[in-house]
Amino acid sequence: MNVLIVHAHPEPQSFCASMCSVATEVLQAQGHTVVVSDLYRQGFNPVASADDFGTRKNPDYLTYALEQRSAYEAGSIDPQIRDEIEKVKACDLLILSFPLFWFSVPAMMKGWIDRVFISGIFYGGKRIYAQGGMRGKKAMLALTLGGREDMLSAGGVHGELAAMLKPLTQGTLGYVGMDVLPTFAAWHVPYLKPEARAALMEQWRAHLAPGFEGAEPLKLPDLTLYDDAFRRKG
Amino acid sequence: MNVLIVHAHPEPQSFCASMCSVATEVLQAQGHTVVVSDLYRQGFNPVASADDFGTRKNPDYLTYALEQRSAYEAGSIDPQIRDEIEKVKACDLLILSFPLFWFSVPAMMKGWIDRVFISGIFYGGKRIYAQGGMRGKKAMLALTLGGREDMLSAGGVHGELAAMLKPLTQGTLGYVGMDVLPTFAAWHVPYLKPEARAALMEQWRAHLAPGFEGAEPLKLPDLTLYDDAFRRKG
Repeated sequence: MNVLIVHAHPEPQSFCASMCSVATEVLQAQGHTVVVSDLYRQGFNPVASADDFGTRKNPDYLTYALEQRSAYEAGSIDPQIRDEIEKVKACDLLILSFPLFWFSVPAMMKGWIDRVFISGIFYGGKRIYAQGGMRGKKAMLALTLGGREDMLSAGGVHGELAAMLKPLTQGTLGYVGMDVLPTFAAWHVPYLKPEARAALMEQWRAHLAPGFEGAEPLKLPDLTLYDDAFRRKG
Repeated sequence: MNVLIVHAHPEPQSFCASMCSVATEVLQAQGHTVVVSDLYRQGFNPVASADDFGTRKNPDYLTYALEQRSAYEAGSIDPQIRDEIEKVKACDLLILSFPLFWFSVPAMMKGWIDRVFISGIFYGGKRIYAQGGMRGKKAMLALTLGGREDMLSAGGVHGELAAMLKPLTQGTLGYVGMDVLPTFAAWHVPYLKPEARAALMEQWRAHLAPGFEGAEPLKLPDLTLYDDAFRRKG
């Protein structure tokens, strides 16, 4: 597989950054090709704005999604965005590597999604979920967090982690047609002693054991239940 | 009330921007004081990084939340962040005004949350939900989106909007102790004819009718069910 790891953590020595390095090593050892977009290191700009487009279809009023589509087709989209789009197009598996900030991705990674997952080739009209533009590719979240697993579970104080991640798993990766593999959550990282951190890294290696890409993906909404305007049938 | 509207939309003429203006007018007419943080206009930097801190408690390894707390206390946090923190502290009601990007806030607003909702005065240890640092304040989401209400409902293709917003409502605003008022969602905005847009704006005014701040807030997790380490009792 061609694997793209998009990584966003403000501390280069973080456990999250080590997970990214370990994933690269493990996946390469399995014969996969790995490309890493380290957004902080690249100085990626996360702000979606009119500046993303060299020429504008409508210079008087910005409809961001429409300009994404036309600027990409015209070749006038910000080269920083274009390069990331080409990396996603070339990959078979996309891994998002990040620390959980406010039960979501850091702004740096949200901006990568906002700017790179463009209308047109990623999605558009009826081309979502099983019909999404990126169908055939796989995706996975690999995140670090301070909380313990019991705090983000059914009956836990915050409820289930999977529910908090729904905008990312279903609403972003699944939305564009990717098969969403099981999330790897590295729990309680800032509070772990070295031995526990080492054990956690072994869990991450085990999560990526040969054949991991064959795991059952997240169940996405069944488009056959809806008509062409996404109205429920029957 | 002192009302803080934090607004993030890349198009100054958007319906979302008009909602922000209308809210300002309506709330001032009710005798409230309104402050607007227009993040795109302010050129707000959404990237949480080591650059946010003039002096570092630990210059060798960035634990962002710990540095937030100590830099704020030491008066060495980025003045752009400090100013926003003071606005939140001074408000009785916080309104987040934004277009829904990938079932969440745009990166610009996510970065405002990442950088401004600092450890220490907003939350910390057991100070979350009903014990959160911002208890006594209210909050509301006011968002625009392309989808129709039936697409984001029980049985709809994407499931319920409230579930997609959980990281923001419960996981951010509620987490720091704010009472989260009912969300206003302006559905299907890009596809509406002028008359329908005008009717939608009237719905927004009605949402803000006198006494709106007394609406039943979102039910948050009940901390009495958990011990001091957030483990479920009994």
